Amino acid sequence: MIKDIVKGLISTGRLELINGGMCMHDEATVHYIDMIDQTTLGHRFIKEEFGQIPRIGWQIDPFGHSAVQAYLLGTEVGFDAFYFFRIDYQDRDTRKGTKELEVVWRGSKTFGSSADIFAGIFPKNYEPPPGEFYFEVDDTSPLVQDDPLLFDYNVQQRVNDFVDAALAQANITRTNHVMFTMGTDFKYQYAESWFRQMDKLIHYVNKDGRVNALYSTPSIYTDAKHAENEKWPLKTNDFFPYADDPNAYWTGYFTSRPALKRYVRVMSGYYLAARQLEFFKGRSNSDHRTDSLGDALALAQHHDAVTGTEKQHVANDYAKRLAIGYTQAEKLVSSSLSCLSQSGSKSHCLSQTTNFGQCPLLNITYCPPSETNLSQGKSLVVLVYNSLGWKREDVLRIPVLSDSIVVHDSEGREVESQLLPIANASLHMREKHVKAYLGMLPAAKPKFWLAFPVSVPPLGFNTYFISSGKKSASLSLMSTLHPSQGSENSNTQIGQGHLKLQYNAAGKLSLYSNSKSQVEANFEQKYKYYIGQDGNGSDPQASGAYIFRPNGTVPIKTNGQVPLTVLRGPILDEVHQQINSWIYQINRIYKGKDYVETEFIVGPIPVDDGNGKEVSTEIVTNMATNKTFYTDSSGRDFIKRIRDYRSEWKIEVHQPIAGNYYPVNLGIYVEDGSRELSILVDRSVGGASIKDGQIELMLHRRLLHDDGRGVAEALNETTCFDNQCEGLVIEGKYYLKIDPQGEGSRWRRTFGQEIYSPLLLAFAEQDGGNWVNSHVTKFSAMDPTYSLPDNVALLTLQAGEHKELSALASVDLKRVFPDKKIGKIVETSLSANQERSAMEKKRLKWKVEGPPADEKIVRGGPIDPSKLIVELGPMEIRTFLVNFSQQSGKQLM
Amino acid sequence: MIKDIVKGLISTGRLELINGGMCMHDEATVHYIDMIDQTTLGHRFIKEEFGQIPRIGWQIDPFGHSAVQAYLLGTEVGFDAFYFFRIDYQDRDTRKGTKELEVVWRGSKTFGSSADIFAGIFPKNYEPPPGEFYFEVDDTSPLVQDDPLLFDYNVQQRVNDFVDAALAQANITRTNHVMFTMGTDFKYQYAESWFRQMDKLIHYVNKDGRVNALYSTPSIYTDAKHAENEKWPLKTNDFFPYADDPNAYWTGYFTSRPALKRYVRVMSGYYLAARQLEFFKGRSNSDHRTDSLGDALALAQHHDAVTGTEKQHVANDYAKRLAIGYTQAEKLVSSSLSCLSQSGSKSHCLSQTTNFGQCPLLNITYCPPSETNLSQGKSLVVLVYNSLGWKREDVLRIPVLSDSIVVHDSEGREVESQLLPIANASLHMREKHVKAYLGMLPAAKPKFWLAFPVSVPPLGFNTYFISSGKKSASLSLMSTLHPSQGSENSNTQIGQGHLKLQYNAAGKLSLYSNSKSQVEANFEQKYKYYIGQDGNGSDPQASGAYIFRPNGTVPIKTNGQVPLTVLRGPILDEVHQQINSWIYQINRIYKGKDYVETEFIVGPIPVDDGNGKEVSTEIVTNMATNKTFYTDSSGRDFIKRIRDYRSEWKIEVHQPIAGNYYPVNLGIYVEDGSRELSILVDRSVGGASIKDGQIELMLHRRLLHDDGRGVAEALNETTCFDNQCEGLVIEGKYYLKIDPQGEGSRWRRTFGQEIYSPLLLAFAEQDGGNWVNSHVTKFSAMDPTYSLPDNVALLTLQAGEHKELSALASVDLKRVFPDKKIGKIVETSLSANQERSAMEKKRLKWKVEGPPADEKIVRGGPIDPSKLIVELGPMEIRTFLVNFSQQSGKQLM
Repeated sequence: MIKDIVKGLISTGRLELINGGMCMHDEATVHYIDMIDQTTLGHRFIKEEFGQIPRIGWQIDPFGHSAVQAYLLGTEVGFDAFYFFRIDYQDRDTRKGTKELEVVWRGSKTFGSSADIFAGIFPKNYEPPPGEFYFEVDDTSPLVQDDPLLFDYNVQQRVNDFVDAALAQANITRTNHVMFTMGTDFKYQYAESWFRQMDKLIHYVNKDGRVNALYSTPSIYTDAKHAENEKWPLKTNDFFPYADDPNAYWTGYFTSRPALKRYVRVMSGYYLAARQLEFFKGRSNSDHRTDSLGDALALAQHHDAVTGTEKQHVANDYAKRLAIGYTQAEKLVSSSLSCLSQSGSKSHCLSQTTNFGQCPLLNITYCPPSETNLSQGKSLVVLVYNSLGWKREDVLRIPVLSDSIVVHDSEGREVESQLLPIANASLHMREKHVKAYLGMLPAAKPKFWLAFPVSVPPLGFNTYFISSGKKSASLSLMSTLHPSQGSENSNTQIGQGHLKLQYNAAGKLSLYSNSKSQVEANFEQKYKYYIGQDGNGSDPQASGAYIFRPNGTVPIKTNGQVPLTVLRGPILDEVHQQINSWIYQINRIYKGKDYVETEFIVGPIPVDDGNGKEVSTEIVTNMATNKTFYTDSSGRDFIKRIRDYRSEWKIEVHQPIAGNYYPVNLGIYVEDGSRELSILVDRSVGGASIKDGQIELMLHRRLLHDDGRGVAEALNETTCFDNQCEGLVIEGKYYLKIDPQGEGSRWRRTFGQEIYSPLLLAFAEQDGGNWVNSHVTKFSAMDPTYSLPDNVALLTLQAGEHKELSALASVDLKRVFPDKKIGKIVETSLSANQERSAMEKKRLKWKVEGPPADEKIVRGGPIDPSKLIVELGPMEIRTFLVNFSQQSGKQLM
Repeated sequence: MIKDIVKGLISTGRLELINGGMCMHDEATVHYIDMIDQTTLGHRFIKEEFGQIPRIGWQIDPFGHSAVQAYLLGTEVGFDAFYFFRIDYQDRDTRKGTKELEVVWRGSKTFGSSADIFAGIFPKNYEPPPGEFYFEVDDTSPLVQDDPLLFDYNVQQRVNDFVDAALAQANITRTNHVMFTMGTDFKYQYAESWFRQMDKLIHYVNKDGRVNALYSTPSIYTDAKHAENEKWPLKTNDFFPYADDPNAYWTGYFTSRPALKRYVRVMSGYYLAARQLEFFKGRSNSDHRTDSLGDALALAQHHDAVTGTEKQHVANDYAKRLAIGYTQAEKLVSSSLSCLSQSGSKSHCLSQTTNFGQCPLLNITYCPPSETNLSQGKSLVVLVYNSLGWKREDVLRIPVLSDSIVVHDSEGREVESQLLPIANASLHMREKHVKAYLGMLPAAKPKFWLAFPVSVPPLGFNTYFISSGKKSASLSLMSTLHPSQGSENSNTQIGQGHLKLQYNAAGKLSLYSNSKSQVEANFEQKYKYYIGQDGNGSDPQASGAYIFRPNGTVPIKTNGQVPLTVLRGPILDEVHQQINSWIYQINRIYKGKDYVETEFIVGPIPVDDGNGKEVSTEIVTNMATNKTFYTDSSGRDFIKRIRDYRSEWKIEVHQPIAGNYYPVNLGIYVEDGSRELSILVDRSVGGASIKDGQIELMLHRRLLHDDGRGVAEALNETTCFDNQCEGLVIEGKYYLKIDPQGEGSRWRRTFGQEIYSPLLLAFAEQDGGNWVNSHVTKFSAMDPTYSLPDNVALLTLQAGEHKELSALASVDLKRVFPDKKIGKIVETSLSANQERSAMEKKRLKWKVEGPPADEKIVRGGPIDPSKLIVELGPMEIRTFLVNFSQQSGKQLM
C-alpha cells in the first residue's frame, strides 16, 4: 500500500527522484568508472520500479565538485541541472557579491558547450534558510502557532521570518525564484512534523502575499529558472579543493583510509573483469553473480565511504560488504574461467571442472595456490586474464617456495624467469596480516618472487605452467650498497633497457635517464611527514578525516647505516631501501618497460610523541614548472592547477600546503616545456606540487583528533594481532615516467588503464602434463586478429535483460563480438536509462554570458546498423543497448 | 478520519483510556475537591466523546501517593486498580523481597474494605524493563534485526533480553503475569518506531515460547491478576513521603512555589462559589462562564503544576491561565449577583444592572472598590456571598481611605466596626506588587483596615453598607512594646474573649489560654531557615524544587530593638512583629472566635551569601506528643505520622528532618492526651513535628541549584519591579487552636471548610440610600429556615445537561432546593460517569491476606425518591444526578 502511495506521488510529480544513483557518490576520491556504474545501477532501478528518468543532479554534500561530475555524470546521464553547496568559502563569498551562485558549468574542454549543465550552488548549506525553520520532532525552531486563542500565536512573526529569508536569498541570486532546502542530515524521521509546519507557512505566507511559496521540486525550480531566459555566468574546471574556513581545507580525505581506498579500487577493476567473464559464461540466476560486488562497490562510492570520512566501524562495514561481494564474484570468475578453458562446447557450461584459486592478498605476499610444493611431477597452471581490449605484455610476480623453478607457455616453450628473494619487510607484513585477517598462520613460507613475462590477448586469457626445474629461473644478482662507505664516484645504476636510474654514493636516487627518448632529469625521492594540528588551545581546528591542517613539516632522513639492496636479473631490477624503521621502499625497472615502479610500505606511523602524522613522498627534480601542475578529474580529464591560485576567483592564501592539495585518482604531472614528469597512482591520494619541479603524494595519515565535521572520531586506523593493536600499515605503488614534452599523455592514459585493470590471475594444479591436451589455453572474446586502439578501453560488459555497450574512436563491433549476431542497437544516455536522441531533444539549453565560444567539438556520429562501426571523439563515452541473437550486451569506452 | 480510527481502537479495546482526568494530578499538594473536579471534567469528556468509563487509576509519576487518591479518586470513581511507581526506595526494596509490590490498598479507615482497591507498584519506574527496550527515533537500544542477510541480525539475543526481563520481574511479583510499561516521558512522538520493534519482539518471543508476550492494557492486566484468585497483602495509610535515594526526600515540593499554591487554592474556592452562582443564574452559552477557570484549575492540578516542580515560564503559564479563567468567572459572579440582587423576577435575568467590583488582590491590601472616597453622600455596598451550606458569622477586613466610616446592615442597623492602621510592611508590599502586576501605581492610598462582623445565610448573601460617618468605627488602640526595656513581670495579654495570648517581657509569645475550654499551654512561635544543600562537591544531591535536603538549620532571632506593636479594638486584637528585615508577622484574635490567626509576610529571602534557604515557622509547646503528629491526606482524612518511623516497613533514617516532612493541605495537629494543638493552613505546605510538642511549617523556599529530577532550573522565584528583580515575597496565614483532647476535629473540619471557601465579597457604589428599596439584600438558595449540618459542605453545584449532587449525614434535598421540583434522581460514581449501582456490581473484589477485618462501615442507604433525604456516613461523598423541572443540578458533600 505504501508502495502504491509513493508511486502515485511520483507519477503526479509531487515526489521527484533526483540524482538517482545507489548513493550520493563522492567526487574527489572516486573513479569515474565507479561513478558511472553506481549511477547506472540506481537509474536502472528507478526506471524499472518507477518508470522515471532523473533530470537533476543533487550532489549536495560531497566535499568539492569535479568536472567529470558536471559533464559526465551530469549532462551525459541526461541531467538538466546539478545542485550542491560545498565550494570554497572565498569562492562563495565572491559569487554572492556578483550573483554568480548559479552558473552554467562547462566541465569538459573537449566537449565544450555540448556538455553544459546548469549548476546551482546553495547560498549557505543544504539546510533550511536562516531564521529557524527546523521542524524535526523536538526541534527548537518556533512552530507556526495559528490558534489565536493560544498565548504563543505567532503567525505574522513566522511569516516575516520566512519572507525575510526569501528576500535575503533573492538579494544574492538571479531571477525571482529561490529554492529553500527544507531539511538536513538525519531529518524527516517523522515527516509529519515538517509538513505540518510547511503547510502552515505556505498558507500564511501566500496570504501575506509578499512572496509566493509553494512545495516545489528541483525540476520545477530548474524549469522556472530556465523559463526566465536569463544568461548565466560560465564556470569551467572544477570546485576543488573545498575549504569552509581559512584553516579548514578538506584535502585530508583525498588520502584518508588509504587501505580502504585501495581496496575499493582493486575491487572496481576486478568487478569490471568479472562482469566480462559473467557475460562470456552467460548469466544465470542459480550461479554466483557479480551483483553483490556491484552493490557493495556502489555503496562504497558514497561521500562518507571511500572518502574515509566515516567512523571505523562503518569503514569496517563497507570493507566487509566488499569482501562478501568479492567472494561471490571470485567464484563466478573461477567457474567462468573453468568453462572458457574447458575443451569442447562452451556455449553452455554447466559443471565447473576446474576450481581456480585466486590471490586477493598478493599485496601482502600471500598466494596459497602458488606457494605449493612442485616436486613429484605436479605443476602449477597460471591462467592470466586480460580485461582490456588490447593485447597486453606484462610481467607477473608470484611468491614461490623453491628456487628450482621453470616456466613454460601454452605451446610448451620455456619462458625466461627470474627469482627475487622476498624482502624481510614483506615477509613480516605477510605473517602479521595473514594472522590478523584470516585468523591463522600461512601454511608455507615462500622464499622468492618468481617474475616472468606474459602476453595475453584482448578480452582473453593465456596459460602458463610453472614446474620444478633445476635452476631454470635466474636467481637475481643481489648486491648491497653501504652508502656511508662509498666514495664520491661510486654511483650505482639500475635498468637494463633504455631507462636507467642512478643512485649516488649516499645511496640516494639522483638521476633519471632514458636513452631512447633522450630524456634526463636530476631526480630525488624523499619522504616527510606533516604534524597534524591537534586543535587544542585557542584555535580548535584539528587535522582530521576530512581536513588537512599541517602544523609543521618533518623531513624523514634515510638512515645512513642501513644498506641499500640492489637486485638485478633478466626480467627486472629492484632497489630496496629501508627509509626509516616504518617506511620501506622498492624501486623497480622492468626490462622493456620505460617507467619506474615504486612500491612503498608505510606504517605503523608512530604517534607515541602525541602527534598525529601525515606522510607524504616527494619527487624533486630540477624542472622549472612555474607553479603549474595537472591532476586528473575523477580519473579522467587532467585539469591544470596553479599553486596559490584559482583561475576564476582571487584566493587569499592561509594554508599554503593544504590549500594546494588536489585529489589524484589517476595521476599527477608537471612539465617544463621540454619534459613531462608523470606519476600514476594505484588508488586515490592527495597530491600537490608545493615547489617548482616537485610533486608530492600523501600516502598515509594517522591522526589523534577529530576535525569536527561529523565523524566524531579520530582517524587513527589500527590493525590488531593477538589483541595487540598497532597503527595500520599501507602497502602500495606509484608509477613514474618522464617523457618529452607532449608525449606523456599516451602513457598516462594507456598505462593508467592497465593499472586500473591489472591482469587477473587464476591458479590450478595439474598432475602430469595433460592440461594442454584437455584445455583451451588461449582465448580472446574478440576477433583474434583485432585489438582495440591503445587509447580505448572496454568499460562495462554486463549480461542481463537490458544490455549496455559503448565504444570509441572507431570500434568495429562485429570484430569485438565475432561470435554473436547483433540485432537491434540503440544509443542511450551514459546510465542507459533513456535513448540518447530523446535525451538530447528534451535537454534544456542554457544561455551563457559573454561572447559565444569558439569551439570545435569532435563527437562520434550516429551508428550505421549495417556497418556497426562506433566512432568516438576524444574522451567520449558512448553507451549502446545491443540485442544479440543470444541476449547479451556490452558497454565500451 | 483519525478520530474514527481512534474511536475504533477504543471500542475494540485495543486502546484503553485510563485515569481519565484532565491531567495526572499530584497527590500531595492538591485538595481533594480539585482532584474530584478535574477528574470529573475528564471523565465527562471521555464519556461523551468515547462512551467510555475508565476502570484503572494510573498515577505513575506523582511523587508519593495519598490515601484519598486510593479510596476516593480510586474506588469511588469506579476504578478496579491503581498503578504507580514512586514509593520510598526502602519500602520498594522491602516489597521486592516479600513480593509485596502489588497489594490491596485500604485507604480509608472509615470505609474499610468497602473502599479497597488493587494497587500495583512498578518494580523500578514507568519505563521499559531493564535490558534496552527504548525505541524512540534515534534511541540507543538495539533494534530487533530479523533480516538474516544483515550483519546485525540479533533476534535470539533480543528475545533473550526480553525473556530475562520478564523472568526477573516475575521473581519479585506474584502470579504469572507481569506488566511492561513500554514507554516513558516524551516518547511516542513517532509511534511507529516503537510498534515496529514491539511487533517483532512479541512475534519472536512467542515463537521462542518461554514466555507469552502480548499487547495488553492495564484492564487486561488487572483482570488477569484478578482471575488468579490470589490473596494480596494489605496496605493502609499512604505512601508519603517519597524518597528515591537516602538523601533525596521529595518533600520540598510540598512547599515549592507557595504563591502558585495559594493562587490555586484561592481559585479553587472561588470556582466553587462561582459555579453555585452560575447555577442560580442559569447557565447560557452567550454569557461568561466558569469553564475557563475550571479548565485552568484542572490543568493546575498536574503533578508538575501546583507542585511547583516546573520551570518558571511554565509556572507563569499556569498562573496566566488561572488569571484568564478568573477574569471570566469574575464577570459571571458579578452578573449573577446582579441578577440575584435585582428586585423582581429572577428566573431569567438578561441584563446586568449592577457591575460588582471584586478584590482578588486583597492579599496585598489592594481593593480599589473599597478604596473610594465616601464623602458627598456616596456609600459602598458590600455584598457578601457564602458558598457553604450553613449560616456563617465572620469578620470582614477591607482597606479604606478615611477614619470617618460607619457600617450598616441591610436592615439599616449600624454594625460595630473597627479601624486598624495598615502596617507599613503591607503598604510596602502593596505598592511594589500593584506596580509589578498591574503595571500602574494604585490611585489611592488606604490608611486603615476596616473590620466588621457579618452574618450570611447558607448558599446566599447579605448586604452591608459603608458610608462616611463621624468616627463611628472604633479606631484601634495602639500600644508599642519595647521588649528590651520591659521588666520581667510586664507580660502583655491580648484577646477579648475566652482566648488569650500572653507575650512575655522579651516580646515573645509565651502562653496560650482559653478560659472556656480550660486549655492552657506554654507556647512559642519562632522562625528558622534551612540552608539548602548546594549539591557541589562529592555529593551531588542539591535541595531543589522536588527535594528538600537541608544542610544546617539557622534560627531566626527576633531583633530585640524592633518594637512589638499591639492593636486592640472591639472586633479584634492584633500583635505586629517585624521578625527580621524580611519577615513580618501579625497575630490576630477575633472577638468571639477561639483561634489565633497568624499572618506572615516572608521574603525576599536573601541569597547573597550564596546559600539557598528554606524558611519554616515553628510552634513550640510543652506538650508531650510522643513523636506523633497528624497530617491530612489531600485535605481530607487525617493520617497518623510518627517521627523517624513508618508503620508498614522499617526505615533507616538518613534525613531526620526532610524524611519527617509531610504534605499539609488542610492542617496538622499534635496531641498529648489532654490537649490537641491544631494548625490549619491556607494552601499546601510541608509540615512536620521534628521535636515533641513542636509543629513546623515550611512557608517559603528560595534555592540556587537544581535537584536533578527534571526541572533543570533552580527554584529561585523573583518578582520584578522596573527591571529590578528580587526574591518573591510570600503573604499568607495559618490558624491555630488548642482544644481539649478529642474536641479538635470539629474545628479542623468546619473551619477548614471556611478557609477553603472564604466569603466572597462584591462591591458596588450607591448614590444616596435607595439600594435597599430597589434590591434584594439578603438571599439564600436554600430554605431560609434550613442549614446543612456544620460538618457538611456543598462541593460542586454545576448547571448543565448532567447535574451532580451529593449530600451527607442527613440532607433534606427538598429544603436545599426549595424552589425546584426534583424529578429523577440517580446516584453515580464520584466523577458522575456511571450509575453507582452498576459500578458496585461490576467492581472487582480483591482478597486480602490475613484474617477478615473486624469493621463496621457506616454509609448512607439508598435514597427514597419520595422523601429525597440523603444519608451520609462520616467522610462519605455521594454524587447524584438530579433532574429538575428546570434542568439544573448540585453536588454536595
